[in-house]
Amino acid sequence: MQKKLFIPGPVDVLPEVLKQMERPMISHRGKEISAILERIIGNTRKLMYTKNTILISTSSATGLMEGAIRNCVSKRCVNFANGAFAERWHGIAKECGKEADLVSVEWGKPITADIVDEALSSGKYDAMTMVHNETSTGVMSPISEIANVVKDYDVSFLVDTVSSMAGVKIEVDKLGIDVCLYGTQKCMALPPGLALCSVSDGALKKAEGITGRGHYFDFLALKKSIDKLQTTTTPAISLLYALDYQLDRIINKEGQENRYKRHAEMAGIARKWAADNFELIPEEKYASNTVTAIRNTKSMDLGGLKKKLAEKGYEFSNGYGKFKDVSFRIPHMGDRTVEELMQYLDDLDECISGPSC
Amino acid sequence: MQKKLFIPGPVDVLPEVLKQMERPMISHRGKEISAILERIIGNTRKLMYTKNTILISTSSATGLMEGAIRNCVSKRCVNFANGAFAERWHGIAKECGKEADLVSVEWGKPITADIVDEALSSGKYDAMTMVHNETSTGVMSPISEIANVVKDYDVSFLVDTVSSMAGVKIEVDKLGIDVCLYGTQKCMALPPGLALCSVSDGALKKAEGITGRGHYFDFLALKKSIDKLQTTTTPAISLLYALDYQLDRIINKEGQENRYKRHAEMAGIARKWAADNFELIPEEKYASNTVTAIRNTKSMDLGGLKKKLAEKGYEFSNGYGKFKDVSFRIPHMGDRTVEELMQYLDDLDECISGPSC
Repeated sequence: MQKKLFIPGPVDVLPEVLKQMERPMISHRGKEISAILERIIGNTRKLMYTKNTILISTSSATGLMEGAIRNCVSKRCVNFANGAFAERWHGIAKECGKEADLVSVEWGKPITADIVDEALSSGKYDAMTMVHNETSTGVMSPISEIANVVKDYDVSFLVDTVSSMAGVKIEVDKLGIDVCLYGTQKCMALPPGLALCSVSDGALKKAEGITGRGHYFDFLALKKSIDKLQTTTTPAISLLYALDYQLDRIINKEGQENRYKRHAEMAGIARKWAADNFELIPEEKYASNTVTAIRNTKSMDLGGLKKKLAEKGYEFSNGYGKFKDVSFRIPHMGDRTVEELMQYLDDLDECISGPSC
Repeated sequence: MQKKLFIPGPVDVLPEVLKQMERPMISHRGKEISAILERIIGNTRKLMYTKNTILISTSSATGLMEGAIRNCVSKRCVNFANGAFAERWHGIAKECGKEADLVSVEWGKPITADIVDEALSSGKYDAMTMVHNETSTGVMSPISEIANVVKDYDVSFLVDTVSSMAGVKIEVDKLGIDVCLYGTQKCMALPPGLALCSVSDGALKKAEGITGRGHYFDFLALKKSIDKLQTTTTPAISLLYALDYQLDRIINKEGQENRYKRHAEMAGIARKWAADNFELIPEEKYASNTVTAIRNTKSMDLGGLKKKLAEKGYEFSNGYGKFKDVSFRIPHMGDRTVEELMQYLDDLDECISGPSC
């Protein structure tokens, strides 16, 4: 039985989107692929509210995290962390041989403007990383307030929006984000395998002076190709078909504002359910609009719950990393509908109130 | 009009293979994906005649070239080059900050055992790179003879088999190849977006002592995950569906030996056509079984020829890089049939003998 994916990515992909991948191969150096890339770039700029360079990578978003680190950290970076994915930034920085400091807050808390201000005021850093929406804890950090602080410093502002882009409005140029990156398998409701990012002119200029950019994730090489509506190496053509189609759906069919509204509405429903039955992990004002993380205050057997939901045709998501057993998550992202979420919550209620949970 | 791709990758993919990508998403951490990965690894080991670790990367093969360099070059590497893709190895090595020497022969010539022996005997190198089948010049270097030489040295043997694996028998363990890498969009007749490689125990052991392995292409991290039938990051699930299906087709339906025979038969036909009408670029004994590169001895207008073939429903391939205008290529790889190739040659004859070529 095909399960409905109530995990925070990969998410269910609409049949009409999957269908795009049945299209035959084309040359990766011809006019047809250039036209596809041109549409993708145009619509991605709309999606991200940016005029910056758009890079398309055949990799997961983690690859572009490595790219951001390799291309944008010259002296030393600070990695703000409030969960598993924010911590990954720090691991990557160290693995790429960069000088890097980890500034951590408790899992479940947001990164705040004050925390960022304090670290950056040390003058030690030329780059900072953060995760906008921590998939592991359901926390959405206040990016606007943080951006206001970052503007006062000469640092590269590197942001992982993996689980928020296309589900929440993120105005890249207004926020002054230098590198904003994400994968396709979360709020964009596409199969995994492609990652995208915007890169500011300032970041590109800075990269020219940074050695150790490597090859596959060298932003300058990627830019040089994409400026010609080409890719450096053979891209995942089938995934580009799907991306092209889905961006058009998001921008021109559903509409961005409607998409954000739907995500907000689903988040409201999930949070109310959580508050009525358990406890939200984040403070409500920092709760994510794309995934709701819930403390397992009833000490339910999450493994048992997972099994019961599987029988009902759902893929359930418990917590992540050190939150694995003490929390569970209700994702509401991508092309998920309000009705599907409500049905899921009903089924969840039934499973929870039944025996063995 | 959908064109038949007579370019050396991406190649045409069978509808039944494309169809696999319509399958719905699944969790990237569940039992189902592990079962898929297990089958892929088992069949890939058969395809490569190896017991080595198999790594699966969501990237193009170029990404794994970077991985091979980062993980396996400690002191200094030698990059044997006889075409564009062999030269890429050298570029990557330099970009990754490795000490590297380029040993070049004229484009169109093979790398020979003597050339390799001479370079390695200097004792300067702990790693060497080569391309088995140079897509840019249609040259297949004598890998068995080279392997016989390499065995006498303590060097990591890094081989790009991008355009030969699955079209030509490459017995990795017998040859003692440490890292053997390729993408899916050539002889495997799959969409691009995934790359695979085998890594020997010796290479993995050596990697432990090498810093600067980075993150995304860190072979030790990739191995740690794949040993648990997991991936480090969310993989391109749709492409894994297609890979799983196609490996089964290659190994269990067509059969590997039949596949090699078909490629050899097509190569024979293409070479005869080339010799009758033009001139082969490589010496016949080094001519590739997957792509035939032909000197444009009649000084045809290749742009005009490309247009005429496009009208007949073909994507034609001229030369690559500095061979762009002086040569053209007839690929015969993947699931291409003998009949399709013969029809193409007939149509090519008609176009060539007609006006404007």
